[in-house]
Amino acid sequence: MKPAPTDTSNKMWGGRFAAGPAAIMEEINASIGFDKRMAAEDIAGSRAHAAMLAAQGIITQADAAEIDRGLAQVLDEIGKGRFTFSRALEDIHMNVEARLKEIIGEPAGRLHTARSRNDQVATDFRLWVRKTIDQVDAGLAALIRGLIAQAEAGADLVMPGFTHLQVAQPVTWGHHMMAYVEMFGRDRSRFADARARMNECPLGAAALAGTSFPIDRHATAAALGFDRPTANSLDSVADRDFALEFLSAASICAMHLSRFAEELVIWSSAQFRFARLSDRFSTGSSIMPQKRNPDAAELIRAKVGRIMGALVALTTVMKGLPLTYSKDMQEDKEPLFDAAEALILAIAAMEGMVRDLAPDPERLAAAAGSGFSTATDLADWLVRVLGMPFRDAHHVTGRIVALAEAQGVDLSGLELAAMQEVEPRITRAVFEVLTPAASTASRLSYGGTAPARVREQIARWKEMLG
Amino acid sequence: MKPAPTDTSNKMWGGRFAAGPAAIMEEINASIGFDKRMAAEDIAGSRAHAAMLAAQGIITQADAAEIDRGLAQVLDEIGKGRFTFSRALEDIHMNVEARLKEIIGEPAGRLHTARSRNDQVATDFRLWVRKTIDQVDAGLAALIRGLIAQAEAGADLVMPGFTHLQVAQPVTWGHHMMAYVEMFGRDRSRFADARARMNECPLGAAALAGTSFPIDRHATAAALGFDRPTANSLDSVADRDFALEFLSAASICAMHLSRFAEELVIWSSAQFRFARLSDRFSTGSSIMPQKRNPDAAELIRAKVGRIMGALVALTTVMKGLPLTYSKDMQEDKEPLFDAAEALILAIAAMEGMVRDLAPDPERLAAAAGSGFSTATDLADWLVRVLGMPFRDAHHVTGRIVALAEAQGVDLSGLELAAMQEVEPRITRAVFEVLTPAASTASRLSYGGTAPARVREQIARWKEMLG
Amino acid sequence: MKPAPTDTSNKMWGGRFAAGPAAIMEEINASIGFDKRMAAEDIAGSRAHAAMLAAQGIITQADAAEIDRGLAQVLDEIGKGRFTFSRALEDIHMNVEARLKEIIGEPAGRLHTARSRNDQVATDFRLWVRKTIDQVDAGLAALIRGLIAQAEAGADLVMPGFTHLQVAQPVTWGHHMMAYVEMFGRDRSRFADARARMNECPLGAAALAGTSFPIDRHATAAALGFDRPTANSLDSVADRDFALEFLSAASICAMHLSRFAEELVIWSSAQFRFARLSDRFSTGSSIMPQKRNPDAAELIRAKVGRIMGALVALTTVMKGLPLTYSKDMQEDKEPLFDAAEALILAIAAMEGMVRDLAPDPERLAAAAGSGFSTATDLADWLVRVLGMPFRDAHHVTGRIVALAEAQGVDLSGLELAAMQEVEPRITRAVFEVLTPAASTASRLSYGGTAPARVREQIARWKEMLG
Amino acid sequence: MKPAPTDTSNKMWGGRFAAGPAAIMEEINASIGFDKRMAAEDIAGSRAHAAMLAAQGIITQADAAEIDRGLAQVLDEIGKGRFTFSRALEDIHMNVEARLKEIIGEPAGRLHTARSRNDQVATDFRLWVRKTIDQVDAGLAALIRGLIAQAEAGADLVMPGFTHLQVAQPVTWGHHMMAYVEMFGRDRSRFADARARMNECPLGAAALAGTSFPIDRHATAAALGFDRPTANSLDSVADRDFALEFLSAASICAMHLSRFAEELVIWSSAQFRFARLSDRFSTGSSIMPQKRNPDAAELIRAKVGRIMGALVALTTVMKGLPLTYSKDMQEDKEPLFDAAEALILAIAAMEGMVRDLAPDPERLAAAAGSGFSTATDLADWLVRVLGMPFRDAHHVTGRIVALAEAQGVDLSGLELAAMQEVEPRITRAVFEVLTPAASTASRLSYGGTAPARVREQIARWKEMLG
Repeated sequence: MKPAPTDTSNKMWGGRFAAGPAAIMEEINASIGFDKRMAAEDIAGSRAHAAMLAAQGIITQADAAEIDRGLAQVLDEIGKGRFTFSRALEDIHMNVEARLKEIIGEPAGRLHTARSRNDQVATDFRLWVRKTIDQVDAGLAALIRGLIAQAEAGADLVMPGFTHLQVAQPVTWGHHMMAYVEMFGRDRSRFADARARMNECPLGAAALAGTSFPIDRHATAAALGFDRPTANSLDSVADRDFALEFLSAASICAMHLSRFAEELVIWSSAQFRFARLSDRFSTGSSIMPQKRNPDAAELIRAKVGRIMGALVALTTVMKGLPLTYSKDMQEDKEPLFDAAEALILAIAAMEGMVRDLAPDPERLAAAAGSGFSTATDLADWLVRVLGMPFRDAHHVTGRIVALAEAQGVDLSGLELAAMQEVEPRITRAVFEVLTPAASTASRLSYGGTAPARVREQIARWKEMLG
Repeated sequence: MKPAPTDTSNKMWGGRFAAGPAAIMEEINASIGFDKRMAAEDIAGSRAHAAMLAAQGIITQADAAEIDRGLAQVLDEIGKGRFTFSRALEDIHMNVEARLKEIIGEPAGRLHTARSRNDQVATDFRLWVRKTIDQVDAGLAALIRGLIAQAEAGADLVMPGFTHLQVAQPVTWGHHMMAYVEMFGRDRSRFADARARMNECPLGAAALAGTSFPIDRHATAAALGFDRPTANSLDSVADRDFALEFLSAASICAMHLSRFAEELVIWSSAQFRFARLSDRFSTGSSIMPQKRNPDAAELIRAKVGRIMGALVALTTVMKGLPLTYSKDMQEDKEPLFDAAEALILAIAAMEGMVRDLAPDPERLAAAAGSGFSTATDLADWLVRVLGMPFRDAHHVTGRIVALAEAQGVDLSGLELAAMQEVEPRITRAVFEVLTPAASTASRLSYGGTAPARVREQIARWKEMLG
Repeated sequence: MKPAPTDTSNKMWGGRFAAGPAAIMEEINASIGFDKRMAAEDIAGSRAHAAMLAAQGIITQADAAEIDRGLAQVLDEIGKGRFTFSRALEDIHMNVEARLKEIIGEPAGRLHTARSRNDQVATDFRLWVRKTIDQVDAGLAALIRGLIAQAEAGADLVMPGFTHLQVAQPVTWGHHMMAYVEMFGRDRSRFADARARMNECPLGAAALAGTSFPIDRHATAAALGFDRPTANSLDSVADRDFALEFLSAASICAMHLSRFAEELVIWSSAQFRFARLSDRFSTGSSIMPQKRNPDAAELIRAKVGRIMGALVALTTVMKGLPLTYSKDMQEDKEPLFDAAEALILAIAAMEGMVRDLAPDPERLAAAAGSGFSTATDLADWLVRVLGMPFRDAHHVTGRIVALAEAQGVDLSGLELAAMQEVEPRITRAVFEVLTPAASTASRLSYGGTAPARVREQIARWKEMLG
Repeated sequence: MKPAPTDTSNKMWGGRFAAGPAAIMEEINASIGFDKRMAAEDIAGSRAHAAMLAAQGIITQADAAEIDRGLAQVLDEIGKGRFTFSRALEDIHMNVEARLKEIIGEPAGRLHTARSRNDQVATDFRLWVRKTIDQVDAGLAALIRGLIAQAEAGADLVMPGFTHLQVAQPVTWGHHMMAYVEMFGRDRSRFADARARMNECPLGAAALAGTSFPIDRHATAAALGFDRPTANSLDSVADRDFALEFLSAASICAMHLSRFAEELVIWSSAQFRFARLSDRFSTGSSIMPQKRNPDAAELIRAKVGRIMGALVALTTVMKGLPLTYSKDMQEDKEPLFDAAEALILAIAAMEGMVRDLAPDPERLAAAAGSGFSTATDLADWLVRVLGMPFRDAHHVTGRIVALAEAQGVDLSGLELAAMQEVEPRITRAVFEVLTPAASTASRLSYGGTAPARVREQIARWKEMLG
């Protein structure tokens, strides 16, 4: 994950490592290459810490003011790209503190009172993950709105419902879109639970044992938007379960995305043509104009790989580590940063595709009506109207479908007389359930595909989204 | 995962598979070998469904009564080991229904009205996972009680706190135990969240589209202890995110267990001897009486492998599946069953070990006082009492420790005069912070290792546990 | 993975575990539930060991004969299902030895001379994995023969070649089948390499340090079909890389299977109908006769999940274990046994499906000719015949295709004059490359899709297979 | 994995993505950010291709010369950091070709004749992986040499052999080092097998079907150092098993590294002090001078996480992809690049640590002699000299050890008379096997820990290394 823009030579034994042990140690040990992404969080944590130290009389208000001013300047320099990160200073904490000392001199040496890099990095990382959860949540909300818009537009649009990629029963486009709304809705609640659970502040756990300074951990926790301080200092610096929980939720969400992406790829094929992706999210061929490669959908489908890979990576890192902090835990950030970026990007791309997605009503309707897709409706009619046991109704249906197949017609194309040869009690009323539209309209059970039900769900979701 | 007690021959090409395609298809397709574990859940679901069908007038009360009586008998037969599972009947649903028909005849054919194996298996599986979460929760609660008992008994017991497996600062045994209480406490809340999210009833989603029968899904949901019915029928039969969330929480919990297990293995070594495992959870050697192999701890340490493996397995299975049900999803149960059993067993074994665990106060105290472990306390004293900037105090401490090391004494064994050569303002009061006991007692910050703080946390937890 | 035929009650806290620590310890510690599958290997190893001990004069020939006779009887009892496995005896080694003692008395006590359970289990496990590799290899060979048969029958059968599930260029059915032959051929060579690397005998490494008895490790190695004894006793009992390598190769092979399975699922859809699965490997619907659910293909597609899961599980178990044997390593067998069975079954099912697979020539041909699939052929013709730079030819082709699309015809349906408006030098000869059959026939580069080339590859493979 | 040096703002919904769909699509689609690392391979492939085209008369020699000159210049520009990579040009192939056109004009348009980005990227990636295998191999060879140097220096150095982290039997430092030589030796052979299997050239497979141009694939294969061209064009552009095999071998190797790293961490603890890491590969504490945090060892221990994570990621990506190329496969490079770099770095750091590692002979000897570690030697003596059955000898040994324990002495400190009370036939000769040195010297079985045997293995390895 280390950027190497023009890495065209053998940097290792033939090159970089020839410089010897010092180069190798710096290479494996330094984290500034990636933890600089937490610069804003690091500085926010330090400002809260300094303010608390002054409020508690541990440092003077004057020193605290200097520290705050200096840290504000460091943040500004970083934001403007004017900060020079130093690998010799190893990590973001030391980089910031060293620059602070250059700016404000002696008071900088008081900032690290009653804390340690162990609680500092735990705080920074939690802030970063928390911020990221908020971004993911915003992305999922936007995606859900996009799906609801599709569902509203296509609440009556009939399409085949599949099992085993075989047409099973007619459903509606709106119902299908709302299925994903449910999934991404649960994903949001999963991230929300993770956020609530992790929103405790480790700052003040110090190296591992707490501190003898009269610090006010509730104050720093509040200043940084945490619900409370963590309750055990060893646990505070030793655990990374919040990162694993984030990655778990991300992996499940990416799995959901992969399923929708697969559907988009299949629907885009010449054989299905159920829907058309916009030019913006597909790539063409200069010599095959009808070709519309679903590149974005394929890349989204793939992202679950790297996200689950990151979860596996970090769980493996944490496995069997004795308390408290071990350097192994420095490997917590890169996989999570990468997974978070992949997830956010995949959600954004999916939202874009959903907004642009154009279903093909004719193709969908034709497919929905094929393959005796209303056979269950016939069976259910036999049970409901004629009072047959379900298993018997199933048997009768099978015989009627066989008749239709032999005649090369659909169920709704079969003569009533033909049906009555199999079951004399069948009446003309049966035809009311044999078209895809009738079938979907009849499935009025709660959660069913009937447009009326789907519209109720749409309304419920819109109200929840506010 | 298929049991094969005496599988000593080549069952495959040289044997079983020689029987041809039918044998291969049955082997890969049948699920009864593992889904029979959900028999109780399957029957509970069917009883609730039949009662609802009767209440809604879809079947008669008489039929419903027959069905209920028959299902009760099937359950009884299974419970008593008198039920013959048939592989030809593929799965638990067909096995139960076929036996029901033998018992009650025709009404059995009405049970499957307005449902499908798709919503049936989703319901069974949720009920099984929910039950398992309750078992895990009970196990974790017991483990937490065991840890609290250890913490109470050892609230003042000094031991070394480690970073990088190097002695860093003195802490207390009670504090260390309570660190795991926090971890397992979060694990419980993670399972509780998963339970709440998954506690929706898919029954009535039917094959995938809902049904035209006037069923009452809220009634079956309530009868089975669900909070509500699921809101989208496609989603109901297509998703398994609840299983993935269970496995994610299990994997994180197993990671926590693996860390404690690693500590137990290390503490049991002849070189550490920090604590002694009971005979009940270790194995000896007939010829090396002092040997106490921490077998149970090692096996617990290993379980995170198979549990995370199950998570990887199921995520991979679900990746890229189009809606709704695909047969791939039959692969959801075995990994989860296995992971659940492994987790429950590991928690029970850990609880047993914790209950029996005997720390060695002398070894712990000796280790806690070694290696200038109170150097930070000295530095903090210099800041707190003399008002030195933290970074300067650090520097002075380094020089004093170097003096002690040169003299071969501990910090508390150094003459005051020697310290004053480095920093004249140091007074005799400094010695009050230089012993491990003084060090731990002084770390009174919230969440710190001071016995007073630890006892507060113990009290808080005991109140929460009720 | 523990069989629990009628596990309908709460076996854990409410049940089994109520029995207390001893029950929990036995549950987590005993391996006989799964390592009995290595009974044949265990006995083979013991027989070879006893024969060597006698040959070296470490035990008497008479004792060795008794031991051999007794072990033969134990094997027979196990094979006939007459052996009672005891959980109190923990593992297969102790079960066999205890029974041996019952049968032959005192000499049984001499069998364990100069060995330990550590080298014994390592030997058993290698023998089991080696045998399994041979089964996998046989299965893959059969599958490859099935693919070659399909390739021969369809060497000229035109079908679309896809990228992004979009029709790209015409290829042949034979070429497509041979692509999988290459993949499964590499899988075989991967297993063969793993077999060669692992085929070293750990027997005689004893507990971990070797032994002072004058054993002949080369003799036992040879007797058990190993190429040589292992060279370092610590490594012999401590490593399980051979199991990980097996699982890695299995995971890659399962990935290949999953891709073919996905194609079969897609090809079986009503929208594609490229090929038809036999009734033997699909399941139907009693009321939807045309439905042919590709259950076997879906289950094969899923197996990569549990196989990669097993690899993750064992790698995680082994991560960070100090030398030599730790009890964690007892977790090596269940995942591997399960993965091996899943792989062998998936290969067998795939072979069966391939043998029965019926391509639909009309559907394939129609799809192959659609979507201007010979546009590249036109561009290549412009380069080859007219000497245009490739990028220019591409541009011209794009304009001609646009013309055809505007006229609603295929490339071969466009008038020569129309083409000449875009590029006057085009001659009637161009039509020779514009049909799918012409296109495939022209791709004569080594490894290309031309039937002539495919037939050469078929011949090469048949010769290799012998 | 995307570098973001000063990413301190919300680049996503609040920022970058606000730019709309085009920005999102470019972000998810472009690969130049990472595939520029294959620039050298891409250019090498193009030069070989152009030379072959000219040799076959498909382009002129003059054009080929121009192309070659231009590509040499592009390579030079990239090497010197003067090349401006363009994201709009998506990938390395288009970036290079666009620049080539700027440099040489029209002939650049002929380079892409008879190839496609599909076979081009497959070729580039294979070249990159092959080069990386060579680097890994060199690193492992250096590490093995370091281990052998340690083994030679410590061939007689007695240390405890552990099972379950409990002292089991004395072994030698040399033997322990050589155990890792065996492991890393197998790792090398695994990489060598992977290299041999993947060393086939996909160039000329074109988009997927081969080409109608009279290309010479054997020529390009040879020019690029491949053993032969690939045999099936579909397989050539569709499979990535070579990357998975590399990652599998890397994951196993990283597992081996993690075990040694764990040992180094444990050995460095104050409680063990078996060996001392050099300052170069540990970090200290300014106030705790004896502290020597094994940072490098911990980071090495962790690397198996990200390497296995990469394997999981790519396997998941490939799962269930229909042939041939899908855009998902663009996700093949980042995980592999990252894993390769992590592995090479971990090996280099381990080599450095091994070179500097200083065992502590006194601590090792003391630990080796503790805990009745020669009890097995006593038992073996009883069998060997007195002819007792092994199981009886075990029993007698247990009683003698109990005596020693009761007296508070070691086995070699027990009076002969005391032993004879348990077993009268014991003679003074028994003491010859009861010291750690005697124990190790006696284990002369092939692969045993006896210094003589270890020296033979050292010699064998030195000869193999040349």
